[in-house]
Amino acid sequence: MSLTVIGTLAYDTIETAHDKREEILGGSAVYFALASSLFTPTSLVGVVGQDFLPKHTEALKAAGIDLEGLEVADGRTFRWSGRYEPDWNTRHTLDTQLNVLEHFDPKVPEAQRGARFVFLANASPQVQARGLDQIESPEFVMMDTMNLWIDIARDELVELLGRVDAVVLNDEEARMLTGEDNLWRAAAAVRALGPGLVVLKKGEHGAFLLEESWRFTVPAYPVVNVVDPTGAGDSFAGGFMGFMASVGDSNPSTLRQAMLYGTAAASRCVESFSTDQLEGRSLQEIEGRREELLAMITP
Amino acid sequence: MSLTVIGTLAYDTIETAHDKREEILGGSAVYFALASSLFTPTSLVGVVGQDFLPKHTEALKAAGIDLEGLEVADGRTFRWSGRYEPDWNTRHTLDTQLNVLEHFDPKVPEAQRGARFVFLANASPQVQARGLDQIESPEFVMMDTMNLWIDIARDELVELLGRVDAVVLNDEEARMLTGEDNLWRAAAAVRALGPGLVVLKKGEHGAFLLEESWRFTVPAYPVVNVVDPTGAGDSFAGGFMGFMASVGDSNPSTLRQAMLYGTAAASRCVESFSTDQLEGRSLQEIEGRREELLAMITP
Repeated sequence: MSLTVIGTLAYDTIETAHDKREEILGGSAVYFALASSLFTPTSLVGVVGQDFLPKHTEALKAAGIDLEGLEVADGRTFRWSGRYEPDWNTRHTLDTQLNVLEHFDPKVPEAQRGARFVFLANASPQVQARGLDQIESPEFVMMDTMNLWIDIARDELVELLGRVDAVVLNDEEARMLTGEDNLWRAAAAVRALGPGLVVLKKGEHGAFLLEESWRFTVPAYPVVNVVDPTGAGDSFAGGFMGFMASVGDSNPSTLRQAMLYGTAAASRCVESFSTDQLEGRSLQEIEGRREELLAMITP
Repeated sequence: MSLTVIGTLAYDTIETAHDKREEILGGSAVYFALASSLFTPTSLVGVVGQDFLPKHTEALKAAGIDLEGLEVADGRTFRWSGRYEPDWNTRHTLDTQLNVLEHFDPKVPEAQRGARFVFLANASPQVQARGLDQIESPEFVMMDTMNLWIDIARDELVELLGRVDAVVLNDEEARMLTGEDNLWRAAAAVRALGPGLVVLKKGEHGAFLLEESWRFTVPAYPVVNVVDPTGAGDSFAGGFMGFMASVGDSNPSTLRQAMLYGTAAASRCVESFSTDQLEGRSLQEIEGRREELLAMITP
């Protein structure tokens, strides 16, 4: 079934303890769509500047991503620069240049307004809400967010949480949003804000899902050589929702499998800088990792 | 089948962010045996001083623990005092008084020398080795250790690792012993030192098991109200080996189930100070938690 993502496209500059890359393709919608399009046709709604390279547009198209909703605005593409501590768990933002994102007003093309599955990738809650307003009657809407919005746009964020079916956030964000240290309590407190389903990501410690009457945990895929964790969360969401949309429902058994597919997709993402390990991949490779994960959790 | 634990008995003084307790029953062998004896008859080899209270001896006996190997020496029982940070992950040792432990030489009673399953709970590798020397031909030996021994008795520890079937250690210890940050790599490096099976505990993030050709992960049971994490690792090991010994083998399917039982036992332990939540418990309660865990990991 149709899947639409609304989010960012970026050029990232990233430093790790081992290496550095400048001006590489990134952005929440990019990582999401490259992962989700392995499962199901995906439409991307976002904005880039005049400097967005044709080769990157081509790479997204080659992955089968529908770019009708990609606006090319006057100005430069969004830039983000960050540095990871050797333990990968701590990330420092070194520089953010909003550029064309500053006045981004998502325009969902006519053909996507009937989308059944929608992912509101990380962006300001106002932008996310304006995107969601344009979808007529989605079956399943999931959103992401980040600490910045919890800090400066909490009211808008909480309002949006009341409009979505699911939210995916990491441990730090869940604690920050709820004030609860214990992650199960934090997830329950997030649920109380509206979304029936909360997916909480814990990096190398995996993820868990909390619904009203059930919960499901999944370990991280044991990646031996992490190169760059940027985009792992969006790739997780892409695998998760891509699988859901390919099945076409949000039943508990689908959601549980989606957790495994999301984990498998995220594990590919972190093995390279930028989108190298997501581009040109086949579903078969993701399937192989899902099977390994399954073996790791089957008693 | 017969299970013997060699380890410590202690009086602990513990501070958490919420509460404090003085001179409460603790020690690695105590936590282990109270958990394992829910599954199988357990013999304890250890030492206490003249001040060890009869009510504590009685509590261990009431749990069905065989105390023939419990020596009562001149002097005072081992004391340990520690404080936990609010996040539970950081523990500061405030005071250690070895007392009767200083000259502890474990004496395995004749009746226990043919033990099939043996747990060498945390003690100096020299003491652990002298205990193991007295067991004739055990089927399965698992050991624990701590950062102190990695620091001051690494050679003896590494030598002992070459003599056991399995080792259980936490993330910090695994990193310290191997110099590997990535926990899967660290576990593999520990395996390379001898034990075919490595169980790596990650506190609130659960645990995983690494064997030559397979691995298994388990989340922590979602305890909502942690009171005192002291003894969680030993309770885990007790549930793990108690179940193994009750089944009587070390097949992969038994080991996987043992991970769930260990997790369930540890979750009871942390819900109270000292051994309150382990004493007088039934296997049925542990079974209930194992079933909840199973539901959490079944896709």
